[in-house]
Amino acid sequence: MNPTLSEAGLDALALVREELDQVEAALRDGATAGSAAVDAIGRHLQQSGGKRVRAAMVLLTGRLTGCPAPTRIRLAAIVEMIHAATLIHDDVIDEAPTRRGQPSANARWGNQRSVLAGDWLYMQSFRLALEERHFGVLDALISLTQAMVEGELLQLEMQGRVVAPAEHLDLMERKTARLFAVGAQLAPLAAGRPEAECQRLERFGRHLGLAFQMVDDLLDFTASEAVLGKPVGGDLREGKMTLPAIYAYQAAPAADRRRFEQVLEDRGYVSVPWPAVQSLVQASGALERARRESREQADRALAAMLEFPPSPWRDALARLPELVVARSH
Amino acid sequence: MNPTLSEAGLDALALVREELDQVEAALRDGATAGSAAVDAIGRHLQQSGGKRVRAAMVLLTGRLTGCPAPTRIRLAAIVEMIHAATLIHDDVIDEAPTRRGQPSANARWGNQRSVLAGDWLYMQSFRLALEERHFGVLDALISLTQAMVEGELLQLEMQGRVVAPAEHLDLMERKTARLFAVGAQLAPLAAGRPEAECQRLERFGRHLGLAFQMVDDLLDFTASEAVLGKPVGGDLREGKMTLPAIYAYQAAPAADRRRFEQVLEDRGYVSVPWPAVQSLVQASGALERARRESREQADRALAAMLEFPPSPWRDALARLPELVVARSH
Repeated sequence: MNPTLSEAGLDALALVREELDQVEAALRDGATAGSAAVDAIGRHLQQSGGKRVRAAMVLLTGRLTGCPAPTRIRLAAIVEMIHAATLIHDDVIDEAPTRRGQPSANARWGNQRSVLAGDWLYMQSFRLALEERHFGVLDALISLTQAMVEGELLQLEMQGRVVAPAEHLDLMERKTARLFAVGAQLAPLAAGRPEAECQRLERFGRHLGLAFQMVDDLLDFTASEAVLGKPVGGDLREGKMTLPAIYAYQAAPAADRRRFEQVLEDRGYVSVPWPAVQSLVQASGALERARRESREQADRALAAMLEFPPSPWRDALARLPELVVARSH
Repeated sequence: MNPTLSEAGLDALALVREELDQVEAALRDGATAGSAAVDAIGRHLQQSGGKRVRAAMVLLTGRLTGCPAPTRIRLAAIVEMIHAATLIHDDVIDEAPTRRGQPSANARWGNQRSVLAGDWLYMQSFRLALEERHFGVLDALISLTQAMVEGELLQLEMQGRVVAPAEHLDLMERKTARLFAVGAQLAPLAAGRPEAECQRLERFGRHLGLAFQMVDDLLDFTASEAVLGKPVGGDLREGKMTLPAIYAYQAAPAADRRRFEQVLEDRGYVSVPWPAVQSLVQASGALERARRESREQADRALAAMLEFPPSPWRDALARLPELVVARSH
């Protein structure tokens, strides 16, 4: 972790620290269904809430574009709630035992309650969004969630086979980048800012999201289990080829390609051990290539943000791409 | 099946036959995600679509209240889509192998695709609803779907234990009656009819829905597997006590109560065979009591409808309660 970049990131979040607390309060109030199961899952999600980078982005874009405080706080809570709902259903689909180093929702409460808790959170996010009384915001959120679900379905169809870089890019776009892209333009949309401004922020969010996902994929090859909060090499074990594996596969001779295919076939490191795969990926230069691309995405996000005139909010947002890429060091 | 009542019911549906075809077309067009999995599940749902009694109700209330054709057709499709989404997630939750005599969605496509297909259908129904550009309609639909999910969570909490009649009524209200109640008032709401008229139709729908669910619960004790399309006695086998079992349990001496508890404990007819349970329920008079209550609900639905001045639409709607109750004979 580069300490300079990290401090820059902390500064970026410091500007919205108080409002992030209000987002947490909105999430707490919002996830009270009167049902013990939803309440418990709501608490679980709060405790394992991560860095709320999406919420911070929504709050900062709200400040940048003159979106009133109650609206930007609500929009930030909505985005975190949608994110949480997708994570819960993801866990059910992946049968994941852990999430961020803690037992996953379905490991704790079973698939049944998790399916319903995810449903409930989706609906709660739409209910919150309805309070804005803004059709454009609702259109954006429904298109977003539908695209994310389509991304999940696409991933199921791609699972267990070799995929091309373009296929994986499409998947990252739907599964991760879209939430950042829509999240970044919600506040200006609600505030009635010009279309060009919304589109610029959409572009910022999309590239930031792509950088974020690329780094996530890298960490699965480079981080320790302690840092990652889950066993490394998990993507390939689940039959998911991400950029490092895709690039290494493309660069590999037939015999080595066969080893990747074997892992996908075995759904695990059975006949090909994880260190062998890791060596193949490292030796191929795929990690550098994927890291370079994540930096390119971060640079494009930065460039979109620098089209705005200077302000504390712009500068904080401009630091988010660095913060995201710094995770890979 | 009482042939007179059945003909009356067919007449009721005949009035909206053409528009029901348009609802089917809207469902077909609406469930095309560009994803093979969603398309397949969409087709499956169309083939096993049942009688579309909810869609017919929405169309007829639309005619009754002067709601324009495109709107009432869209609202009917939305209600069927929400119904389908809940059925898919229900099947995942119940791990049901069959639905309406055919393999269930999750038996065919697995839990993973079914969770996502349900999510997708919920979102597609909200997308269709958004096209109406009517906040009241959206509020009603979000409250509805959230109440239904809360009903499912409540059911999980009640599963495997003895429940009181009031608890079961609350569950029927959320799981079934709410969809009928909201479905019946959507068209007048969209058409801007007076609040009192919406409430009268809400009352009609709620009692119709309760009658519908009570008959469904009865059929699980009285119908043949061929008629039901799934093994009889399934509710109790899944640990769900419905009115006939609840009433029989209440009327039974301690030794017989123990037999119900045993079935709930065993999650099946292991130490207590199904015919023994069926005899207990029959001998207790619980079936007559439950049947009487379903008729009472049907009568209350009828009474609400007869508050409207005579018209072909009113008379068709007034026949729906009979049609629903006739299923239990």
